[in-house]
Amino acid sequence: MKIVKIEAIPFAIPYVKPLRFASGEVHTAEHVLVKIHTDDGVVGVGEAPPRPFTYGETQAGIVAVIETVFAPQLIGLTLLDRERAQQRLQRTVGNPAAKSAIDIALWDALGRTLNQSVTALLGGYTDRLRVSHMLGFEEPAKMVAEAERMIETHGIRTFKVKVGRQPYTLDTVVVRTLRERFGNEIELYVDGNRGWSATEALQAMREMSDLGLSFAEELCPADDILGRRWLVDHLDIPFVADESVTTPAEVTREILGGSATALSIKCARTGFTQSQRVHHLAEGLGLEVIMGNQIDGQLGTMCTAAFGAAFSLTSRRAAELSNFLDMSDDLLTDPLEIHDGDLVVRQGAGLSVEIDESKLTHYRLDQ
Amino acid sequence: MKIVKIEAIPFAIPYVKPLRFASGEVHTAEHVLVKIHTDDGVVGVGEAPPRPFTYGETQAGIVAVIETVFAPQLIGLTLLDRERAQQRLQRTVGNPAAKSAIDIALWDALGRTLNQSVTALLGGYTDRLRVSHMLGFEEPAKMVAEAERMIETHGIRTFKVKVGRQPYTLDTVVVRTLRERFGNEIELYVDGNRGWSATEALQAMREMSDLGLSFAEELCPADDILGRRWLVDHLDIPFVADESVTTPAEVTREILGGSATALSIKCARTGFTQSQRVHHLAEGLGLEVIMGNQIDGQLGTMCTAAFGAAFSLTSRRAAELSNFLDMSDDLLTDPLEIHDGDLVVRQGAGLSVEIDESKLTHYRLDQ
Repeated sequence: MKIVKIEAIPFAIPYVKPLRFASGEVHTAEHVLVKIHTDDGVVGVGEAPPRPFTYGETQAGIVAVIETVFAPQLIGLTLLDRERAQQRLQRTVGNPAAKSAIDIALWDALGRTLNQSVTALLGGYTDRLRVSHMLGFEEPAKMVAEAERMIETHGIRTFKVKVGRQPYTLDTVVVRTLRERFGNEIELYVDGNRGWSATEALQAMREMSDLGLSFAEELCPADDILGRRWLVDHLDIPFVADESVTTPAEVTREILGGSATALSIKCARTGFTQSQRVHHLAEGLGLEVIMGNQIDGQLGTMCTAAFGAAFSLTSRRAAELSNFLDMSDDLLTDPLEIHDGDLVVRQGAGLSVEIDESKLTHYRLDQ
Repeated sequence: MKIVKIEAIPFAIPYVKPLRFASGEVHTAEHVLVKIHTDDGVVGVGEAPPRPFTYGETQAGIVAVIETVFAPQLIGLTLLDRERAQQRLQRTVGNPAAKSAIDIALWDALGRTLNQSVTALLGGYTDRLRVSHMLGFEEPAKMVAEAERMIETHGIRTFKVKVGRQPYTLDTVVVRTLRERFGNEIELYVDGNRGWSATEALQAMREMSDLGLSFAEELCPADDILGRRWLVDHLDIPFVADESVTTPAEVTREILGGSATALSIKCARTGFTQSQRVHHLAEGLGLEVIMGNQIDGQLGTMCTAAFGAAFSLTSRRAAELSNFLDMSDDLLTDPLEIHDGDLVVRQGAGLSVEIDESKLTHYRLDQ
């Protein structure tokens, strides 16, 4: 179980349909595949999606920090030295996607070694998650058509609508159209990606107060500290912190500071080990959580599903698991599928996925 | 004044004496020199020191984010488009040293273009700063000998003693020895770099309560949120936040949350533009500040001096400007000097420093 080699492989896979939201847009999945090899010949995998506008990481920076800082710190430890590995990773500030891909690969390798699924090792609460689909910025008619397609093709009935444009009526009209088209057949919530001011956000939320939204996410910047506190104080649905809560300490600060009342957990930024800490902290503080999507590929999506299915709190709400549907291809031999609105977690060892090496050879950027 | 090219040049210069402290040690200055060229042929310079354990940046990561994210965002703007440049830089999270070196190079180029010093453009309050010297971990006798040498050679009389070891008596004995050896001839303060728990920190501070310390910096992790609040609440000298306040919003959070009562400002992480914001915020909130050192080379040190001399609040306390003395060489044609405990800010255009291109050729890593 000794770690003998860590690879960080940059690759790029185009999206069929770019995803647009208030803090940016994504046309190509320029991710880093992490492979951790043990002396038993086991290989665990993880996927790091760089999001400079959200976490400050670049593809080349992720490769650099893994090769120059993290790999030398971890080689020689075993897969069971989890807390020591964490301590070493956490000595370096930031770099959430790089650290998380490593942590995920360690868990995958551990699961393969012990012949247990990651979900089972983490908690094993259930075997599937309901899926929530994200609707990025488009003409209202296209967003409605996409929702229709998701309902028909995949049975998805929960939608997260990206908002945060100026004027805010660009967004509120979309949400109203969706509610009028589908009635109570669907669940709706909104995500501002920090695009509005606190004032705009409260005006928009008042205008949508009759639309039965489940919750609202990052409507204004967390760094607008007093404005955000005022906004959260005036809402009567949960305000979900996402990019503002990337560590347990940030959770504590934002919640105690009145900047949020619920959390998004993303394995792409907290791996499994830190996601577990965030989950346990949220549960202890009495907060609802959502399993979020960092515009993950299929490997990252499987991680989110594996983690979310492990606990009661994380499997209560629909999880954001469908972004991979817009990618033109992926690295897995056996693609994920969403049926009847659910993604089923595989019961095989580790994450129960295999990398298609010919596809990796095709999409990797370093050879 | 149009920006036409941005270079990010990695270089490495060894230290004569490694600097040791609770969060790490530095043997070689593995920095990145940033050069910004305008269409008038003006070149502004800035220096980015990567500190993975404090800010998460690596040397290769800084080069990558500048080349792939920041340079394309800034080329075409003019040197006077400062707020637009800031907005573009701030769209990317983190990367403080990379952003700061760019911002500094922009100010240097602007000063050269307008034939004014950066200090004058910023505020022009004074022409020199008192220097505080940092004493890293060593045997007590060596730390005392280093203080003696600094007093005799450079006239420095303010010392920041690195603490945060276990048991804390390793550190308290050093501080007591320094006070006994030099009496009230010197000013002393301590910096824990998050090495102690809140409890250890309070015990150590109680044991040193008769030693007339001016203030205490980052004794325990800011992420130990409630413990830190308790510690700060129990101290009767200012508690300086340093690595926990890298943005204006972090200042607001930490101060309103009771985690600190004073600030360190470092141009290496907030450049000039954001340092000005942090300064103005601190002044508005009624807080003392210190000009800190990110283990800067001479270029970075000149930036700290240029900024600190621009305002009353930043020039009141001795500034941490002497780490460069331990480097085996540097890139400037005209080395900095500390006399009678002061570093004098040069009055020439921009930062009034020139890069020695033959030295850069010798130390750069990319050719």
